[in-house]
This record gives sequence, structure tokens and C-alpha cells, in this order.
Amino acid sequence: MRDFLPADKARRERVLAVIRERYRAHGFDEIETPVMEEYSRLHAGLGGDNEKLSFSILKRGMDAEGIRAAADDPAALADLGLRYDLTVPLARFYATNRAQLPTVFRAIQMAPVWRAERPQKGRYRQFLQCDIDIIGDASARAEAELMIASLDVLDALGLEGGSIRVNDRRLLDAMLDVFGFAPDERPGVLITIDKLDKVGPSGVIAELRERAATPAAVDALAAYLERPAGAPTFDDAGIRAALPDGIPDEVIAHLVALGETVAAARGADAPLVFDPFLVRGMGYYTGTIFELAHPSVDYSLGGGGRYDGMIGRFLGQQVPAVGFSIGFERIVDLLPDDEADGDRSVVLVHDRDVPLDRLVALKGRLIADGARVRLEQRVKNMKALLERSAADGYTAFASVGSDTTVESLELKPLS
Amino acid sequence: MRDFLPADKARRERVLAVIRERYRAHGFDEIETPVMEEYSRLHAGLGGDNEKLSFSILKRGMDAEGIRAAADDPAALADLGLRYDLTVPLARFYATNRAQLPTVFRAIQMAPVWRAERPQKGRYRQFLQCDIDIIGDASARAEAELMIASLDVLDALGLEGGSIRVNDRRLLDAMLDVFGFAPDERPGVLITIDKLDKVGPSGVIAELRERAATPAAVDALAAYLERPAGAPTFDDAGIRAALPDGIPDEVIAHLVALGETVAAARGADAPLVFDPFLVRGMGYYTGTIFELAHPSVDYSLGGGGRYDGMIGRFLGQQVPAVGFSIGFERIVDLLPDDEADGDRSVVLVHDRDVPLDRLVALKGRLIADGARVRLEQRVKNMKALLERSAADGYTAFASVGSDTTVESLELKPLS
Repeated sequence: MRDFLPADKARRERVLAVIRERYRAHGFDEIETPVMEEYSRLHAGLGGDNEKLSFSILKRGMDAEGIRAAADDPAALADLGLRYDLTVPLARFYATNRAQLPTVFRAIQMAPVWRAERPQKGRYRQFLQCDIDIIGDASARAEAELMIASLDVLDALGLEGGSIRVNDRRLLDAMLDVFGFAPDERPGVLITIDKLDKVGPSGVIAELRERAATPAAVDALAAYLERPAGAPTFDDAGIRAALPDGIPDEVIAHLVALGETVAAARGADAPLVFDPFLVRGMGYYTGTIFELAHPSVDYSLGGGGRYDGMIGRFLGQQVPAVGFSIGFERIVDLLPDDEADGDRSVVLVHDRDVPLDRLVALKGRLIADGARVRLEQRVKNMKALLERSAADGYTAFASVGSDTTVESLELKPLS
Repeated sequence: MRDFLPADKARRERVLAVIRERYRAHGFDEIETPVMEEYSRLHAGLGGDNEKLSFSILKRGMDAEGIRAAADDPAALADLGLRYDLTVPLARFYATNRAQLPTVFRAIQMAPVWRAERPQKGRYRQFLQCDIDIIGDASARAEAELMIASLDVLDALGLEGGSIRVNDRRLLDAMLDVFGFAPDERPGVLITIDKLDKVGPSGVIAELRERAATPAAVDALAAYLERPAGAPTFDDAGIRAALPDGIPDEVIAHLVALGETVAAARGADAPLVFDPFLVRGMGYYTGTIFELAHPSVDYSLGGGGRYDGMIGRFLGQQVPAVGFSIGFERIVDLLPDDEADGDRSVVLVHDRDVPLDRLVALKGRLIADGARVRLEQRVKNMKALLERSAADGYTAFASVGSDTTVESLELKPLS
């Protein structure tokens, strides 16, 4: 877990403000849920491996007897837990508040989540997630709106040139079926295929043979992986050409509609890339899956997919849903250092004997003119003070003596 | 704990943005700390009654033996807890990060805290606190900067006319000493005096007699409470006239300097009110204490005070500190309903057969022109859909058919 000092916090809030403003423009509404959810809801099997990493809240007022009784059932010690993602809380929120929400609900959530990971570089136990979700729309319009809005967010952050890798879980299933993998071995096969980027086709095939997957199916997959193929275009012909025969038309049609819709908003070179081997980890995805990429980095800047089964678990009624999580922490790390606040951030360095009322009057005049003002009493090590001020985003300073007025104030740049 | 729906969340974020922007202009820097702190730090006696209301985090990986051993020492079950205020985390933050902070550190924190209160109307187990603190300045400049900035925040929120009730803990101590209360009965006497607003002078005197406080001291206090007195002016003469003889000059001088400094920034009618019986609950206050009032409500909109002893507890070195907590939840409740987003929030109601690519192209054009746009498919109950949209802050709508273009779009107001 991290403390955020002023410069970091300011940058994070600036990025959040851009994300919030852009998603709002695209018709998404921000909501907030409590950080704690019921223990049983956090351990209902919807969070995958994250459930094991959940922080639990000790029940209040437990007596010695109750604690002893819990020795054989540690879950009895906790009634609440900190959320490990924003998807389980969203499903609960939607079930609770559905009557007050529009039929198609476009949600923004920007909030911390917690996972009890072993401390290691770049992994935090508290980190911020930025999720957008569309609940109640089964059409490709939903995926398209998520993608168009998220590409706009990247543009607005100065990260133009983003692209999106797209696949569909049903298509993966159909492919494995065509190759001849048995239904019960498919989850394991997908875990291996997910390593394609890291270990390459030969690594995937070797691991599958080691795992004793159906040999004929592995042969069929190997032949398919070795086929000569350029990058498929994101249209009916391109997607069909990239796939083995026998894939249901309906899945392909959904992807084609998605491609056309994103192209209509983003222009002819809509940056969708069809990747028939994109897997994505979470078990709850049921349809389209996608990842946001940017040429400046070789990791994804976010990802998401359709999870039509999950809301129904809470509501007792099927509701289509699709979500995208933009990689806030990664994006913050990627952006250049603090933009200065322009030349309106001023440090007033004053002698000890300047009367307080004169100081605050001067400060008030500058603030009223639109400046941000910090008062600092003169110290011996002025170099350190001015460097500190510049690091905190101040861009100018002025010396204030007993007779300084707003008119006689001489602003000097803090470089 | 509450879910925040779109309209509420939008209002909260608007208020937060105003508070953040104004405090930043006054030279305060926002920081953020993790929501969890070490259990031992949260139970070190600095949180008063809030310590008992703290949510604790269950240690990960406890086995049956460990749980049984904890039966006689429930604290052994937890290693972390959720913060119950922002002051204890600030003190820890300052001790951890001091080398990277300016000599006089002006902090903003706007973040949730948690208290395991029994559920009741208007009390929440998770609520947002907005604190500003100045660490490292013992002069009245610190109190003045907190007050001037906070009055500016109220103004910016449209709550002009705020005032601040001011007292000093040292002055309360000196008064009780002058009246003749013994040192060990003073904390109890202060608790009774704190009820003056509710029960009046006769109620306070009756309760003190019941509690068997030193009779001569109660008599002296009674005589003082019954003295004919107007509202004291906030200057040397006014403050002295409002107090019994024998109060140390140094405490009065600090208040007078504070009054002059706030007046210099806020003009002649600086809204400080000297209240020699303002007590404020927290035990850690050591000097000036104050509460923000507004004519529209009979409860305070925030409060704070000087707590010079606390940072030293973490740092092993005395550091002066003064803080103010603006009553965010109360202020949000006080503000008028959602301002509409102007006429740039548009709902596009489309027939089912309008092609998706046409729809998103239309939406994209409007967003590029600065609008906020929500797509809605036409439904039977259009009245409900339009009312829902208006409640979510949308101000206009237009019907979209298969041949609608940006140029032919007819916007109608959503009233």
C-alpha cells in the first residue's frame, strides 16, 4: 500500500478528471458503492482467484467462546470483506437499485480495490480500478460504445494511436471443438493458449503434448498455428479467413457489426485487431473479449469482455452485460511528469517580521486574480526551499518585505 | 453504508471538485494514504471513542491453533484496521514522508473513513471526511489560513455568510482554574459545559451541582454565566471583557492576532465570533478550537483546532499542527438539487432499425461539439424514459430515424 505525495496525487486526480469527463460525455454515469461487501457475496465463486486474496473484516464484539468455536471455521470470524474488484459490487448494486436506473445502464466506477498479494515490485495491495460497464444491451452497440469511449479517453490523455485486440469466447470454444478437444480439457487448453504471446506456437504445442491433450486435436491446432496468414482485416472476409471452417455465423456477425460500428465513429482506420487466440483470464466472460494496446508499451492498457451470466446470479433473471477496465495505474505511470499549473502558482517568500495581516491580504489578492499561492517564511537554505516548491508544481516566486504591495510584487520564475 | 446513484455521485464529485480547487488555490496540497493502517497505531489512544468503533482486518492465513489462542486476546486476530479519521493517518504520513514535504506542510485529504456505529438515521458506517491541516507552523497564521480558505470554499459553493466560532483550550483551562475547579474534575466539567447550547446556563449549573463539582467553583461559574453581556467583539478589548480576570495574556494575544489576520483577508466584517464556552470533544486539542457556522442551519458545518502534541507521538519530536474538517456530508445535503449540465446533455432516442454505425456517428459528432450524449432505444413508455433521463441530468432529447443527420436533428427540451 502506498502513500501518495502531493505531486503524485495531483497527477492521479488530473488523470481521473479526464477519464471522468470523457466517459460522462459518452453517456456513462458514475456511481459509488461501499468498499465493504458481505463476506458471503465476495466468496460466491464469481471472483476467481481473487477471492483467496480478499481482506476480511473481523466481526465486532466476538467473545472468547465465539472465537474458539471459529477455530474450525475461520469464515465465521468475518461478516464483511474489502472488495477485490468492481464487478461483483456492480452486480450487487444493479440488483439493489435497478428500479432507479435506466433500461440500458452505462456505469463508471473509479475506486480502490484490495488484494492481499505478497508484496512485490509493481504489485500493490490497494490500487485504483476504473471500470465502465453497460448492463441491459445484448447488441454490439454496447461493446462499440465501450471501445469508442475508451479510445477517446486515451486520445484525451495524449495517448493517441491506441488499438484494441478483439476476440470472442464462443469463437474460442467453437475452434477448440472444431480441432477436436474434449469439453472437459478445454479450460486447461485455454490456459496454455493464453501463453502464446510469451512462448510462441511451438511452446504452446509442446506444453499441450506434455499435458497429454487429445493428440489429434493438438495436431490440428499445430497445423492451424503454422498456416501462412497475414494480420486479418476486421470484416466478414478477414475474420472468416482467419478461422477454421465450422464456426457459427452468429458469432462472426456480432464481431462484424462491432467492427463496422467502431469504424463509423473512429473513421476508416478503426483500430480493431482481430486476434483469434486472445483468451483473457476471468472465467465469467461469455462473449466478446478485448484488450487495449498502445504502441508505446508491450503490455495491455486495459481489457474487458461480455459477461452475460453474472448479473443473473444476483437478480435471478438474465441480464446482458459487458465491461471494460482501463488500466489506471499503468496509464498514470506512462504519462509524463507533472504538467506545471502554468504561471499562476506562486510562492510568496516573506521575512519573519512581515505582519500576518499584510501577508494574507497579499495572498488573497493573488488568489482572487486566479493564482494558487503558498506562503513560505525565508530560511537560510533558500535553494532547497525553491527546489521543493518547484517539485510541488509552483512556477514562480516573489520576495515579500514589510512594505511590499501587490503592485510592487516582483514575480521570478522557479525553473 | 450507502450506494451512490448517478445524480448523487455527480453532485458529490462537483462539491469535491470545488473544495479541491479552492483549497489548492490557497496553497494546500492534496495527499492520499491507504485506507488501512496498522492495528496498533489505530489503538494507541489518539482516536478517543472512535477507536472502539474501528473495523479490524482479520490476519490472513490464521490456523485453528492461532484462532484458539486468540480467544483470550481478540486483538491477536487483527493486524490492520480501517481508519476512523484522517488525523491519525496524517500524523503517520507526516512521520514517514517528512523529508519530502515543505517545512510548513499544508495538507488536503478528502477520503472515506469507517466507524462501526449502530445503524441510525443520518449516521453512516462509511462517510467522507474533508480535512485540511497545517503542520509546522505555531503562529496564528496557520489558523488564519485554514479559516480564510474554508470561508472561501463556502462562498464558492454558494453558501456565503458563513461565520466561525472560536475559542482556545488553554483559555478554557485558565477559566476553570480562575473559578476554582480542581484539575482532576475539569474534564468532567468541560463535558457538562459542552451542553450549554442544548440545556442553557441553568441546566449546566444544575448538572454540575448534581455531579458534586466544587461548590464555590460552581457558584463562581454561575455568577459568570449570569453576567450581563453582549456578543463580544473579536479584538483585545472585546475578548478581555468577555473573560474573568486572570487569563494569561499570551493566549489572548494569539486570538487577537488571528482576528486581525482573518479580517485582513475577509474585510472589516470578518465573521469570527469569540465563544468562551466552545469546548469541542476531541481530547487531543491543545490550543485554538473553532467551528464553522452558517445562518441556514443550526448545526456546525465543520470544526477543528490546534493539536500540537500529536505529531510528536509518531515523530519523537514536537511539531505544531492545526486542522480543520469541513462537514462534507452535511454540505452536500444542504446544497440544492443537481444543477443541470446546461443544454449540452442530450438523449438520442432511436428506432430499433436505425443502423448502429449511423447512431454512433451521430453521437460522435455531438460529443465532438462538446455535448454529453446517451443513446436510448425507443420504448412503449416514453414518458418514463424521458423522466428517468431528466432525473439523470439530461436536458434535451431528439428522435433519430434511419435518415436523421446531425443537420436534421431536432433537439427538444427535457423539462
